Parts: sequence; structure tokens; C-alpha cells
Amino acid sequence: MKDLTTENITENVHAINSQCQNPRTRYIFERLVSHLHDFARETRLSTDEWMTGLDFLTDVGTISTDLRREMILLSDTLGLSALVDSIDHPRTGKSTEGTVLGPFHTHDAKEVENGYAIHKDPDGTPLLVLCTVKDTEGNPLGGVQIDVWEGDSHGNYDVQYPERDGPDGRGILFSEQDGTFWFKAVKPVSYPIPMDGPVFNMLQMLGRHPNRPGHVHFLLRKDSFDPLITALYPRGDPYESSDPVFGVKESLIVDLSEVTDPEMAKKYDVKEGTSLLTYDFVLVSTRETLKLRKEKAEEAIKKMGRSMEDFQGLPILDVD
Amino acid sequence: MKDLTTENITENVHAINSQCQNPRTRYIFERLVSHLHDFARETRLSTDEWMTGLDFLTDVGTISTDLRREMILLSDTLGLSALVDSIDHPRTGKSTEGTVLGPFHTHDAKEVENGYAIHKDPDGTPLLVLCTVKDTEGNPLGGVQIDVWEGDSHGNYDVQYPERDGPDGRGILFSEQDGTFWFKAVKPVSYPIPMDGPVFNMLQMLGRHPNRPGHVHFLLRKDSFDPLITALYPRGDPYESSDPVFGVKESLIVDLSEVTDPEMAKKYDVKEGTSLLTYDFVLVSTRETLKLRKEKAEEAIKKMGRSMEDFQGLPILDVD
Repeated sequence: MKDLTTENITENVHAINSQCQNPRTRYIFERLVSHLHDFARETRLSTDEWMTGLDFLTDVGTISTDLRREMILLSDTLGLSALVDSIDHPRTGKSTEGTVLGPFHTHDAKEVENGYAIHKDPDGTPLLVLCTVKDTEGNPLGGVQIDVWEGDSHGNYDVQYPERDGPDGRGILFSEQDGTFWFKAVKPVSYPIPMDGPVFNMLQMLGRHPNRPGHVHFLLRKDSFDPLITALYPRGDPYESSDPVFGVKESLIVDLSEVTDPEMAKKYDVKEGTSLLTYDFVLVSTRETLKLRKEKAEEAIKKMGRSMEDFQGLPILDVD
Repeated sequence: MKDLTTENITENVHAINSQCQNPRTRYIFERLVSHLHDFARETRLSTDEWMTGLDFLTDVGTISTDLRREMILLSDTLGLSALVDSIDHPRTGKSTEGTVLGPFHTHDAKEVENGYAIHKDPDGTPLLVLCTVKDTEGNPLGGVQIDVWEGDSHGNYDVQYPERDGPDGRGILFSEQDGTFWFKAVKPVSYPIPMDGPVFNMLQMLGRHPNRPGHVHFLLRKDSFDPLITALYPRGDPYESSDPVFGVKESLIVDLSEVTDPEMAKKYDVKEGTSLLTYDFVLVSTRETLKLRKEKAEEAIKKMGRSMEDFQGLPILDVD
């Protein structure tokens, strides 16, 4: 632990961290320190650049509040959030793909009935969202909790208004026994990520635009099923193929239609001609998720030329 | 930019970031994103672990102020600071080694005369610090600016006292024409890194102790010479070989002696028997530093199997 050089310091940090009792934490720090050090060695990071980076991370922390999650936004814009979602929630061909949670999910949305209008927004173009939830065998799933949230017609989420006095553009629904759920929303519009923070400044420096294609967020949860964090993107948005947070997937792009049937308009209490978003969500079981996750973990660890053990469902290195 | 998977997302993030005009920034982000993504893939980072990490970084930012640099402390405890110092300030055998700046350097220290007592601390054991500064040819260097800072006899820096009303335990000196400088300090004691923040909690989780061996910090600057950020550690500290911030180097450990000569005691205005710390600092020229830095950068980039170009003294990838 003395006479540390650019070459031997990594092994020394590993040695001191190996005192950690939790093997999963030990493994995470071993990889974290190796990559952090290799990053510095490969870039020959200068003291000025290092300080710029630390100041930037400090600023991201300082501007954060419970309602402004700038660190999530940073992770989103570096592609880390999309990656972690795809690692933690592996999908089969049959099940709905996940995407980034984003920085605008809150924990204060209210439970509401199907048919609820989630927005107060008087300027939005009305949109009826009518969906089903099934398992991978095609059986309808009732009692699924569905947390939905969406920006308004001006491209702002409720948390972006300083005068916010409670949730708006949000709601927590439950699917009926036939697997259906529905609510009234507004037609999503594209919007920039918050432009008054360090992450926007980073995008500017990188020559990237800040505009996300319009979408509606969904978080579906039911016991024995893997939680599904996802979003639906109406087709044709100009930012569809350059999303700054890497959230768009082809399978999550939807073609909007209209409510043309008068019976249907009556049933869902909307005007004829109202825009309509329909989607069939498919949840994958917890059991299948654990199996898929383990298979993919084994592949990844093997690719590193190492072998793994399982620790509470997550990999640790096999040290034998 | 659609249908991103755990495998192709990294290339897609590189593609969008390649719009950046500055080749050095482009290179840094290419390496940053590659390592960040490999870290997630190799650990199979879970959503819960990812959120724990983001919340931790947010907390490190939130607790930070101009006088409390928790993000530097995080970098210190992961060995990154020591590594960046050794990359940015390569040393030859002749020149004094650098070490971590640490989180307690401030920008409000006052310029003082040689002989100044930097502490008000009435409880400290008096220490005379008497040093020289030379170039690698052995020529004395006058007019070197030397920023010194040190904790007090209770193991606290001035910035750790809530009632702080100005700098204490700090001073900015200048070497005389014969290369000497001297000041009155207190015998350094070991002390824990701040125990009320997220970085301390991280060390606890890792089973690591928080105690730094006692030391005095020095930051030496002179035109045409590479700045030297270093510290001196009196030999025999119980934490000498397990410094939580990886700052100790054998060449920076010093044997304290005592002022025994009555003439010397009179000259430096200290009592006979006062503890004495002496050291001969050797600065390396800017020119030699640039040369060494470039050689080591070329080696490192070659090790990655790539080739480099020079951009304002720092490496970028040769894309031809």
C-alpha cells in the first residue's frame, strides 16, 4: 500500500476493498474500480479534466430534488438507463419490451378508476388510451397495477411547473378481469429535456439536440410477474430516431387511430373522432425472468473469461 | 437508433456523441461510455443497484459546498485522484513525487512571510518546517509559491469547524533566493475523513477504516515548472500503510528531528527541542513534464492496440 504507481494502484485498491463482507458488493467495486482506472489511464485524464468531471457530477447532485432527478437524466443520456433496463428485464419475443423510466416518475400519483382523465390541461388534443394486459400464454391479466404518466400539450410534466400543488398528468389504474384498462390522456408532443441544468449543457457540448419524441409512460406491476417499465411512442415524431435518452424501440411505436364507432364513443365517454391509442401489453413471469437473467449473466461473465456463482439472483465471481 | 439491445447500444451512443466537434471531448466520452456500459454488462447491474448508485452520487453532490468537497473525497477513496495525479504529473527519479490534493485545499489562504505560524491552535505540539526547493540539476529555486495546509492537533481542518471565520492552518509562502522556505506548524496527527457523509458510509460498507496518517500538504508553483501537489508524512503513523485515500509514498515519509542548536532556535524563533521537519523538494520543468507525459500516453494508447495523435498536449485517437 505504499509507492503506488499508475500501474499497481488498481490492484492495491482491490486489495483494500476485498475486506468487504458482501460478495456482490465486492464484485461490483472490483469492476467499478477497474473500469474507472482504465478510463483514466486510456484517456490520460488531466487534473483539469478530472476536476471538470467532479464539478459536473457535483452540479448534477446539487440541482437534484425529489421531483427533479438530474442524475437519472444523466444516466439516460449516456445510454446507461436503457442498458440497465434491458439487463435487468430480459424479454422473450412474446413479451412487451421495456424502456427507460426517465426522470419524471413520481411517487405521489393517485389510484383512479378506469376512464379517468389524467390531465387538467385544457389545451391538449384528447386521446383515449385503451389497452389490454396478458401473460405470454395469451391469458388476460386482471388486477394489474398500471402507473401512467405523461407530459402536457406544452411538453411539460407537472413537476416542471413551480406552482405544482399535486399530481397532474398521472394516475394509477388497475386492469379489469378481462385484462383491459383505459384512461383519457392528451396526444403526446415532443419536448426538450430540462434546459436549465448541467445535463442539457453536456448535450450542447456534445452537439446533441435535447428533444424527446412524444410518448406516454407505463409501469405495470403484478405479483409473480416481472415489473414492466415502458412507454409508447406515436409514429412519425421528428425525433423518433434520435431520442437523446435512447428510449425508442420499434415495437413501442404505435399508429394512432380514431374512435369512429358511436357505441364505442358512448361507452368510453369521448367524442366521435377522438384520437385512439391501443396496445396489448404482455407481461413475463418472474420465474421466466430469473431464468433468462441467469442465462444472459452466464454468457456475459464467460465472455470476460471468468466464471460465476449465483448470489441472491445476481452474479458474483467464482473465486475457487 | 432504434431497437437498441444490451449489445448494440454502446455503438449507438458513440454514434450520437460523434457529433461533438472537439476531438478530445469525443475521445473522453467514447472511453467513458464504453467503460460505463461494460461495467453494467459485466456486473449485470440490477435496477435497484443502479438506483442505489445514482442516489449515492446525488447525495455526494448534495452535501458538497465550496468548503466541503465530498466528490473529491469519493475520487480519493477509489484511488482515482492518486492515479490522475501520477498520470498528469509524471516524475523522474530525481524529482519529488506528487500525491492527492485531498478535499481540504481552499482558495482563501493568505500570503505570509517565511517563519509565519500557520495555526492559532493552542493545543498543538510545535513543529518547525524547514525546506528547500531545487530544480533537477540541483540549482536552488527562489520565488517559488508554496501553498501549505494542515489539520490541527484535534485532527480537524479549519473548514470542518462550523464557526470558521477565515483561514487557519494555511498559508502561502515564497522561497528565498537560496531556495529555502520555513514556517511554524503543529505536529501532524492522524484523523478520520469526514464521518457524516456518504463517502464515510461507503467505506463502512466496504469494511474499510477512515483514518488518514498525519501529514502536511504542499502545493509548489513556479513558472516553467510543473506544479507539485504533494504532502509529507512523519514516519511511524499507525495508518501509514492503509491510507484510505492512497496518498502515502515511501519517498514522502519523513523522519522528524529536533532543533538542538541554540543558534538555530534563535534564528527561527523557536524553543530548543522543538520538533523539526526538513525536506528538499525538487521540481521538474514543464518541458520535461510534457515530454514524459507524451511518452507515457503513447505507451498507454499502444497497449490498447490503437494509435494516437496529439491535441493540445493530450492524446486523441488517430482516426486515419
